[in-house]
Parts: sequence; C-alpha cells; structure tokens
Amino acid sequence: MPQISNRGQQMPESPIRKLVPFAEKARAQGKTIFQLNIGQPDIATPEVALKAVHNYEPKVIEYSHSAGFESYRRGLAGYYDNISKGISYEDIIITTGGSEALIFGFMSCLNPGDEVIIPEPFYANYNGFSTTAGITVKPIASSIESGFALPPIEEFEKNITSKTKAILICNPGNPTGYLYSKEELEALRDIVKKHDLFLFADEVYREFCYDNNVHHSVLNLEGIEQNVVVVDSVSKRYSMCGVRIGAMISRNKELMATAMKFAQARLSPPSLGQVASEAALKTPQSYFDGVIKEYVHRRDVLVDGLNAIDGVFCPKPGGAFYAVAQLPVEDAGHFCQWMLDSFDYNGETVMMAPASGFYSTPRSGKNEVRLAYVLEIEKLKKAVVCLEKGLEAYKNR
Amino acid sequence: MPQISNRGQQMPESPIRKLVPFAEKARAQGKTIFQLNIGQPDIATPEVALKAVHNYEPKVIEYSHSAGFESYRRGLAGYYDNISKGISYEDIIITTGGSEALIFGFMSCLNPGDEVIIPEPFYANYNGFSTTAGITVKPIASSIESGFALPPIEEFEKNITSKTKAILICNPGNPTGYLYSKEELEALRDIVKKHDLFLFADEVYREFCYDNNVHHSVLNLEGIEQNVVVVDSVSKRYSMCGVRIGAMISRNKELMATAMKFAQARLSPPSLGQVASEAALKTPQSYFDGVIKEYVHRRDVLVDGLNAIDGVFCPKPGGAFYAVAQLPVEDAGHFCQWMLDSFDYNGETVMMAPASGFYSTPRSGKNEVRLAYVLEIEKLKKAVVCLEKGLEAYKNR
Ligand SMILES: Cc1ncc(COP(=O)(O)O)c(C=O)c1O
Ligand SMILES: Cc1ncc(COP(=O)(O)O)c(C=O)c1O
Repeated sequence: MPQISNRGQQMPESPIRKLVPFAEKARAQGKTIFQLNIGQPDIATPEVALKAVHNYEPKVIEYSHSAGFESYRRGLAGYYDNISKGISYEDIIITTGGSEALIFGFMSCLNPGDEVIIPEPFYANYNGFSTTAGITVKPIASSIESGFALPPIEEFEKNITSKTKAILICNPGNPTGYLYSKEELEALRDIVKKHDLFLFADEVYREFCYDNNVHHSVLNLEGIEQNVVVVDSVSKRYSMCGVRIGAMISRNKELMATAMKFAQARLSPPSLGQVASEAALKTPQSYFDGVIKEYVHRRDVLVDGLNAIDGVFCPKPGGAFYAVAQLPVEDAGHFCQWMLDSFDYNGETVMMAPASGFYSTPRSGKNEVRLAYVLEIEKLKKAVVCLEKGLEAYKNR
Repeated sequence: MPQISNRGQQMPESPIRKLVPFAEKARAQGKTIFQLNIGQPDIATPEVALKAVHNYEPKVIEYSHSAGFESYRRGLAGYYDNISKGISYEDIIITTGGSEALIFGFMSCLNPGDEVIIPEPFYANYNGFSTTAGITVKPIASSIESGFALPPIEEFEKNITSKTKAILICNPGNPTGYLYSKEELEALRDIVKKHDLFLFADEVYREFCYDNNVHHSVLNLEGIEQNVVVVDSVSKRYSMCGVRIGAMISRNKELMATAMKFAQARLSPPSLGQVASEAALKTPQSYFDGVIKEYVHRRDVLVDGLNAIDGVFCPKPGGAFYAVAQLPVEDAGHFCQWMLDSFDYNGETVMMAPASGFYSTPRSGKNEVRLAYVLEIEKLKKAVVCLEKGLEAYKNR
C-alpha cells in the first residue's frame, strides 16, 4: 500500500473533530445539544438572493470567468468603493469562499518554508491552509485579559526573520470577536511598511460590528497599498455559507495577475453562488440592522450570562459572533467532551469548541472555549444555564 | 513593494491565454469566431437538475458536510456501484469540481519534490495543480501516429525514480480523446503494483465513449484497490460546468481520511451545485443517448473534415469531445494567432488551442492544435471550411 504524504499526515484536524463522535452518541441517547461550536448562523438568507436563484433560468449552467462574473465584480467594486475610494473590479477576484482567497493569497505571496505571523488565538483553518501551502505560522500571543487586543508591536518585531513574508489578521476576529482600532491598524501599517511585508486581512465579519464601533478596513491604510490583501466572503454577511463565494481584493496588480493563474487552473468559482451573491448586493440595510440588533442581543445574553457564572471570564467582543471564555477547569477539551458524554440538565447539554485548537503555541488556551452565538435568544439562555450546571457538576464529579 | 512567490511566478498560464487579446480584437472588428478552443459544451443541462435548483427553498443556504451531502454521496455510491461493485458512500468525497479532487489527491499522496508520471499531451491544468502542490510532472510521450495510445510500459519503467509516487492518466483523454483499452489499463496496473505507486485516473469524460467502445474504469483493476484514486466531475457529464461539483473516489481509507482534512479546512463544497448534482443522478438514459449521438456526429464532421484538408492529420478519438490535429504549419501557436488577427473568410474565423500547452516537454506538439467539438454541426462545418481557407491563405501569406 503506498504511503500518504507527510503534509497529509501533518494536516491538522478541526478543533471539534474529537467531539463529533461524542455529540453523535449524545444525540442518539436523546439529548438536546445547544450547538455553540460552529459558525453556521441560523439567520435567514436575504430573500433577494434566494429569489435570484429561483429566477435563474439558463439553458446551460456554464463556467464563469475565472475571476467571476464581470457584472458581479463591477457590483462588488461599488461595495468596496464605499469602503475605500477607487477600488475597481480589476482589483477583485471572486473565489470559492474566503477559504480559497486565503489559499490563493498564501500561494501567490509565500514560498514553502516562508513564515506568516498571526496573532493567536486565530481561525483554526489558517493552520490547514498553511500546511497546504507549506508555510510556517509564527503565532504571537494576544491575551484574554486585554480582550485579545493586538499584541505589542515589539512582539511582531521580535518574530520577524528573513523568512517572514506576511502578517495575517482577522478583523473582527474569529474566535475572539475582537475589533481592531484604527490605532492598532496603523501600528501594523508601520511595521508592514518597515519590513515590506504582505498584510493579509480577513475581513469576512466586517458587517458585524457592535456598540457603534466602526470597522476600519486595511484597504484604507495609506502607504501600504501594494502590500494589502483583503480576504472576504458572503458566507456570514448574507448568511449563505453554502453558496461558497468569497473574494480576494488587492491593489497590487502583479499579485492579482499571479493569483489569477491559480484561479484559471481551477477554472471558475460557482456560478449559482455568484447569481445569489450578485443579487445579495441589493440586500436592504434593514436586513443588516435587524441582524446586528439580533447579534448584539445574543452577545449580551451569552457574555453577560457567562460572566455571571462563578469562575468564568469572557471579554465582551466588539464584532463577529464568537466569544472566547475562560472556564474554571483545567482542560477545556476534556470538559467539552464530558458535557456531551456524561452530563445533561433536563436532557439538554452544550457543545463548545475547545479554544486550544485556535492556538498554535502548545498548551495555550487550555482552559478556554470558543462559543458562537448562532442560536436564538431563548436557546442561548438555556445554554448558559446548562453550562453553569455543567461546571458545577464537573467540579463535584 | 513585496515580492510575489517563486511558485506564483512559475505557475503556468492557460494555453490560450496569449490568444485572448487577439480574439477580443477580432470580435471588436466584427468577426464571427467559431470557438473550438475550450471545453465548455453548449449541450443543455438536464431539466431535472435545473428544476431541483428552482424548487430548492431553504431558509438558510448552509454549509454542507465537508464530504458533501450524505444523501448525494449515497446516491453517487449507487452510480459507482454500477461501475465497480462495492463502492460505498464513504469511499467518496464531494469536491469543488474535478479540479479540487486533483488538488486533494496531489496534496494527500505526494510531498513537495515528488514526481508524478503523466502521458503527454495532457490536460494543461495538471501543470498548474502540480505547481500548486510543489510536485514535478514527468511527461511520457504518446504519439499522434498511434492516435495517442498508452506509451510502451518500458517508457514508464525508465522514468520511475525514488521520487516517483504516482501515475496520472485521463481516460478518455483531454486533449486527445483517446480511450484506453482494458489491456492498456492492465499494463498500467502491473507497473503500479510492482512499484507500489498511486494511480490517479481522471475519468470526468467517462460517459463520452463512442463506436460501441466501453469505458474501463481503474476502479475495476484487481490487486491495486488501495492504489487507485478516481477524479470525477459533473461538469461535462451533465453539461453543468458552473455548478462546480466533482468527486474523489478511493477505497483507500487512510487516503480518504487524509483528503478529508483538506476538505474540512475549506469547509464545504457548493450546496446549490450539490442540489443540482444530486437531482442529476435521475437524468434519463435518453438524455445521454441524445448527447452521445450528437457528439459522434460532430466528431465525424470535424475529424473527417479535417482529414480531408491537404496536409492535416487528425486521429479519430474514441471518447470525450476533443481532437488533436497536426497542421501543415511550423508553429501552430503563431497560426492560431494569425487566424484571429489577420484572417477571415466571409467575416468568420476559428479559434483553436495550440497543443504545445498540453505538453510539458519543450517543443513538443508545435504543429498541433486541440479542437473541442462543442458547437452545433452547422457551425462545425463552417469552421472546417474556414480552417481550410485559412491554412491556404497562411501558406501563401
Ligand atoms: C475568520 C474566517 N475566515 C474565513 C472563513 C472561511 O469562510 P468561507 O470559506 O465560507 O468564506 C471563516 C469561516 O468560518 C472564518 O471564520
Ligand atoms: C481532463 C479534465 N479534468 C478535469 C477537469 C476539471 O473540470 P471541473 O473542475 O470543472 O470538474 C477538466 C475540465 O475541463 C478536464 O478536461
């Protein structure tokens, strides 16, 4: 039998992978599981997007242009022009989810063995995309005490080597929900400029900013226009993760021409998804107002609820729909498994993602979990109670 | 300005890339272009697939399972079970086109620097996927004189090194249309077994076999069940390239578990495309009968027409919808460009793909072109006349 590849062996598993069989068993036992472990929102996809798919009547569902429908790119350019003046449709490649934009970015900017600096905890699949691209992640710790603010710039300086080619941030962050301030981004700008690095910004949660905080896009950082690469996605914006449409945006023409070669090799992003996404550009503001109101309410219920539990600490996130909480347990991975396997409160339990999967430094985040507030208020309230009871029972087990 | 990566620079461009501006200019000048240069069929997508999309009414378009809808995989397992007894849904991962199946296969089976042997000419994007994966293509020449039959097994033997991890074939072939015989596949089986290699078979044109020839899938090769990986796609089968759905099929459980990690990192294949693809499993046989009749007719019109032109030689392909023809020119790349730029016959011209882009050995296929018979008979007839007039005028230019 032929050997699989080393990179295949090194490819990390999802942070909740180990929990899945326990969840299946719990479900088989009739337990209700409040799933706070994944970022699949329950929010309705905008009508206008669903309708466009229903009204799409081609004779043949053809490949699109490898960079996406020109009409969609022109529409999107209007959206980005509102964020940063002068973005043209030629600065945009439509990708198969933000996931593919990350891969195109890594492949185009870094060579195998090159390094990317990422504040941790970070979106776990950055590890997988790095393994795919053969590059090395250099994590820099952000701390739960500061609410996961940007680590001091000296920490970046310390980690820059001759192999460092890029910094990657996620803003607002998954798993932290942290929203970077203008000052933090300008500090990043300075170091990016000084060392002439690429700055990848994963802004897929851009729309989800709370408490009157505004989102600052790296597209507006002056002096590093040629260094900036934005990763975007319609998955969360319009709650249509399944259409698999994202985008890579950069003013760097050489980079975009390079990324286009990767795009051409895989022929085209999904056409049906683009039909939905192009139509979704017409989503009324009222939709977002409603969604944001809902998320703020959920966040407050979840985070205030968590902080009211003895020994739990959860900074209140300024964006996205995730929160990282510190629990009064030694090994959150074990606790998450125990919650599924050995606990229920009135037949209910909670599934969370152990936060260690979002760190690449060994043993970091061991007593933390990530919670996604993708459930209705009533369920979230029950989930908080359930978690409180669970922590109590776990301590006394 | 930061440097893009070497692999980005090495990433090959599409074989028709250089022609695109000339085609645009010709179109702007009002010329009609018969596009025989790409594999985008004009055949209608099955009704049943389009209808399923129209009737799909979710509240939220969610991610699917990373391996694809279980219902779709179970349906597909039935399809493959007809090809090779015992294929289960767990032997199938739904991918974003056959393209992604190739990438998952390369990533999971080969390390950077490892070698894959491919009979050439071959589907040009194998080069791009190899660059993406950091692996090296070792081409083995097949010849137009033999109709692009499998090269002698000694040629494979000669090219196997300690770095060789896999052989990749395309059956029936793009760009050649060649359909491998059972004997050829068994010869491959023996060498794969002897050297314990992976055998990738790109069978995306499986349905398109002509003249009562049957398709032999590598899934039926005895003794190398753990070595075989099939790349498949609905793009051509149901003429719905834009849905971006393919599949990777293997009985090797370790390999599939590894590929799943790459699949999980990118979350999910397109949900809308899966809705169309699952429904397409119910496409009536009459659809395929009609399509195959049409392709055979087209092939005969094109290939017989080509062979009737002085100095042109085009072996008659047994499958797919491509043919490679040798032209009485020195540099087919230049001729293809000239046809767009400096020629028309009654305002019409022909766009073809220079075959050199399908070879990785330098200077191979210089006087060959690939033609895709993806146009209606009447247009194909005109295209053949136009090509004949063009060759005449080119000689006398
Ligand atoms: C931070 C972040 N980036 C990228 C993605 C990728 O999403 P998609 O490929 O669906 O656009 C996700 C999905 O959860 C995410 O949380
Ligand atoms: C031989 C071959 N393999 C794979 C593909 C990839 O197709 P897709 O990604 O649309 O399934 C193509 C497309 O033309 C092809 O010709």
